[in-house]
Amino acid sequence: MNSKEIVQEIMQKNEVDSVFFVGCGASKADLYPAKYFLDQNAKKIRVSHYTANEFNKSTPLSVNEHAIVITASLGGATPETVTANSVAKEKGAHVISLTRTVDSALTKEADYVIYHRFGENYAAKLEKTGYALELAVEILQQTEGYNHYEKMIDGFSKIYNLSQQSAESARLEAKKFAQAYKDDSVIYVMSSGATHEVAYSTSICLMMEMQWIHSGTFHSGEFFHGPFEITDKDVPFVLLMNDGKTREIDARALTFLERFDAKTAVVDALDYGLSSVIDAEVIDYFNPMIITAVFRVYAEELAIAREHPLTKRRYMWKLSY
Amino acid sequence: MNSKEIVQEIMQKNEVDSVFFVGCGASKADLYPAKYFLDQNAKKIRVSHYTANEFNKSTPLSVNEHAIVITASLGGATPETVTANSVAKEKGAHVISLTRTVDSALTKEADYVIYHRFGENYAAKLEKTGYALELAVEILQQTEGYNHYEKMIDGFSKIYNLSQQSAESARLEAKKFAQAYKDDSVIYVMSSGATHEVAYSTSICLMMEMQWIHSGTFHSGEFFHGPFEITDKDVPFVLLMNDGKTREIDARALTFLERFDAKTAVVDALDYGLSSVIDAEVIDYFNPMIITAVFRVYAEELAIAREHPLTKRRYMWKLSY
Repeated sequence: MNSKEIVQEIMQKNEVDSVFFVGCGASKADLYPAKYFLDQNAKKIRVSHYTANEFNKSTPLSVNEHAIVITASLGGATPETVTANSVAKEKGAHVISLTRTVDSALTKEADYVIYHRFGENYAAKLEKTGYALELAVEILQQTEGYNHYEKMIDGFSKIYNLSQQSAESARLEAKKFAQAYKDDSVIYVMSSGATHEVAYSTSICLMMEMQWIHSGTFHSGEFFHGPFEITDKDVPFVLLMNDGKTREIDARALTFLERFDAKTAVVDALDYGLSSVIDAEVIDYFNPMIITAVFRVYAEELAIAREHPLTKRRYMWKLSY
Repeated sequence: MNSKEIVQEIMQKNEVDSVFFVGCGASKADLYPAKYFLDQNAKKIRVSHYTANEFNKSTPLSVNEHAIVITASLGGATPETVTANSVAKEKGAHVISLTRTVDSALTKEADYVIYHRFGENYAAKLEKTGYALELAVEILQQTEGYNHYEKMIDGFSKIYNLSQQSAESARLEAKKFAQAYKDDSVIYVMSSGATHEVAYSTSICLMMEMQWIHSGTFHSGEFFHGPFEITDKDVPFVLLMNDGKTREIDARALTFLERFDAKTAVVDALDYGLSSVIDAEVIDYFNPMIITAVFRVYAEELAIAREHPLTKRRYMWKLSY
């Protein structure tokens, strides 16, 4: 079943009040654009977004038969997220799970499973985000209706190819970034809008987990309300710039960083032609996908320059905790 | 008018669908416990939480006459938050603003203003958080009803005194913390539940803004999904431990930090007797207040040990940006 049919079937059973997005780490962050889309466009549907263990230990009262719980786990074995499916089912919620791993633990109690790819190419890594966003669009369209539904569907038909091409074209810039940042001991990452948690996963996963580089992350609108006092010549920042309603927020942060000679790397959706294929009314929601694809190349080159493979771990997968 | 009367008056005018919490930096973070309370307990009311500039540039469609927008700014002059009041009013929403500054810009377009104190003592610094939480409780009680309303009211009558006493009793531990952490170049801060954004404001405001110390922050449940790979002997962490449903999540992170000899400072609500005055059914929501009060003393001592006053800035209030 595709996302449209899944939502149709759920709607035949129950009226839907609430949508919960639940995951851990990068899989949590990958659900954020869908959450952001509903926050922006829904007038009745409730939306929230949890790290799985908090959802499990402190389950909201509204997890019931009028709720859709959308969970994600790349390998499908993340214990907290698997438990979230059980918690949600026990409360009577409708559970849709996203994973790449057929018959993984996550699929056992899910009412519906959507399989995505991941390793095949840069575009495949975006399917988790894209399929969650598709579900959000379907839920809105089939409950309250959504004025730009066709524009989103058209966007989905184009974003993967554009993102793949963008990633492939970013290698040279990525190598420059890697040479410039390979010896830094701390790197900050910021963004805004639907891309807010791409900055988050870039910081906690690509930097801290996969490179053991100290890192912090915040919304680029929050930069001026605390973090900017850390700005100094050569303090390293990565700014993920959106093309859309929140671009001005990112641009203001960039102006400040440049004014004080902070070391700044910018990955800008505008540079990769997002607006040439995505309608302006819905462009905000596609920024996270193209920026994720491009920054993956930056991370690969950083790993090469630092001789620290992205797969290297000291704790994860190696011991129980 | 008190929070009960304010909500009553709004409810007489319009049915309320959505509640928006809007602020910047620490004032944004101070609204989080109220947002968390409604996420946990509401079944119909929609809840969201924005940094003000994102609310302004990318205003959700549900900001209308069925929305209550609650804004906060300590000095009442934060430009983005003042603009948020105008944006909300233009869309027909009901605006309640929290500030300590009589007749400040924030008060001009607000429908209702709740003044809080701040500088008088440690308890006064909690009023912004507490009054926002009171508003959330009133909104829930007067729309859907709330089973533990009286327990929350009872909690509000006790939390300020307990927090003041706790802060006053924390001086010795705070001095030890300051001596141990004063030379660190990076300090991570984490927590969970209603205290999640106390960790956030501790990181971006107390550490980055007020001490120019590098810092990162994340939910303690997310620690195991990326950030924990940075753990090593002597890497500095601050863990703000909750007494309530998410305590197990914090405790799991602590166990890991101790296992690998990370440098760990713990501020634990349990140590300050939160459960002796607050009912177990509502204790989660009062953790942020007692922990904020105690950590303020830690920050004061860190500032003394580092000879870097909490009021020292290089950009904020000094230039336009």
